[in-house]
Amino acid sequence: MLTLYDFNSTKGVNWHPHVGKVRYCLNYKGLEFKTIWLEYPEIEGIAKKLGVGPTRTFNGEPQYTLPMIVDDSTGVALAESVDIVEYLDKTYPDTPRLIPEGSHALQAAFRDAFYPKLSAYTPFLIPSTAMMLNPASDEYIRTKLETMLGMKLEDYYPKDEARVAAWNKWKAEVETFAAWFRKEDVWVMGDTPSFADFILAAFILSAKTVFGADSMEYKEILEINDGRWGRLAKNVEKYDPNIHTKYTVLLN
Amino acid sequence: MLTLYDFNSTKGVNWHPHVGKVRYCLNYKGLEFKTIWLEYPEIEGIAKKLGVGPTRTFNGEPQYTLPMIVDDSTGVALAESVDIVEYLDKTYPDTPRLIPEGSHALQAAFRDAFYPKLSAYTPFLIPSTAMMLNPASDEYIRTKLETMLGMKLEDYYPKDEARVAAWNKWKAEVETFAAWFRKEDVWVMGDTPSFADFILAAFILSAKTVFGADSMEYKEILEINDGRWGRLAKNVEKYDPNIHTKYTVLLN
Repeated sequence: MLTLYDFNSTKGVNWHPHVGKVRYCLNYKGLEFKTIWLEYPEIEGIAKKLGVGPTRTFNGEPQYTLPMIVDDSTGVALAESVDIVEYLDKTYPDTPRLIPEGSHALQAAFRDAFYPKLSAYTPFLIPSTAMMLNPASDEYIRTKLETMLGMKLEDYYPKDEARVAAWNKWKAEVETFAAWFRKEDVWVMGDTPSFADFILAAFILSAKTVFGADSMEYKEILEINDGRWGRLAKNVEKYDPNIHTKYTVLLN
Repeated sequence: MLTLYDFNSTKGVNWHPHVGKVRYCLNYKGLEFKTIWLEYPEIEGIAKKLGVGPTRTFNGEPQYTLPMIVDDSTGVALAESVDIVEYLDKTYPDTPRLIPEGSHALQAAFRDAFYPKLSAYTPFLIPSTAMMLNPASDEYIRTKLETMLGMKLEDYYPKDEARVAAWNKWKAEVETFAAWFRKEDVWVMGDTPSFADFILAAFILSAKTVFGADSMEYKEILEINDGRWGRLAKNVEKYDPNIHTKYTVLLN
């Protein structure tokens, strides 16, 4: 059995796109998995217990991050999404491959090209996200973020005209995406889904969870790149990260 | 016959990595081409004459850029490197393919993930580059850059301790590249070169031209990513952008 560690929240579903993309990949491959939902302060201890190292450093401090998986059938425990997906491709060769031969570095670069495009989106995302967290995570993450930002999370969220301007700035930034794709391609790599599609899909889905399906923000996201993001959301519906979710919480 | 438009300079060779990567691709494919070397102020007029549109906008103004090619055998004229290389793949199917089926968007994302990693390198590059230009280009580009930077190009180049700090900052930034690659891979896509390799190679070569082969800067670049960049420079030597160069200058 595969176990996936994900971020807990008051929503009771996956909301974090970094884990969401791995959930999409698992569902696309048809691999069953169990979810353990962690509060932020639990992550480091669990990682150390499982023998999983930090995935990066921040201000010189090692950072332990989700997603993280444990595969009981092999005893392997892993963090870092590209590594996880590549492990699944290799360990379950009868499932559809998500990082095709030769595309490892390009998939990693795609991820690193995509996430900076979300920088103008963080004023919307971070406060909205924080409001969904349980007290244990809220306390842990709020202090860190408010120190970093130098203000209360509530004040970081743009209001009135600033909100319109900030939203338009972000939309203009992600519209540059259009230049990457060939018009006729349904998926990033053409005919079949790959890891890169689920990076995008998980972001779109997290916007749906954070803002709400009926929000103006989510509706506008579906229209980005001439409707490409909306078509993608439709195409990946059957692999939704929140189907088959077994809800197991450690701390609470 | 293929004609490639490139940036002229006092060096009499290719120095601009955006054109360098296309020259590498042409040589790798074994396609003969003639170079016409342009001064900066000539680019827009030539593009318009050839019916080639701007490739982007800057402060709302359309920008006409190099590389640009004309293929006499088909009458096609193109700017924008990914489009050029894809055109060559399609028009000359007996030559080795550089953007393999399915990798179009990932190759474009690789480029967009790579170039921002050079932002900490611009204080070294821009002043050094400007000093190699002929008067027509120098005058044209210097005013633009100095207005943008708010200082003389000579003052933009970091000196003494600031130089050491700026260089180390840049090296740390590009070392993050190492995380994209599998250790065993010689090329970005594994066994054979693709467009992405020539993006990297053209950057390395431009550093050799701008700083000099014996400079400390160039020697350090060869050591980046555990010597990966040095091995790449060696592996692409036979496709050097400056072999078979026919020197044709318009303005001078």
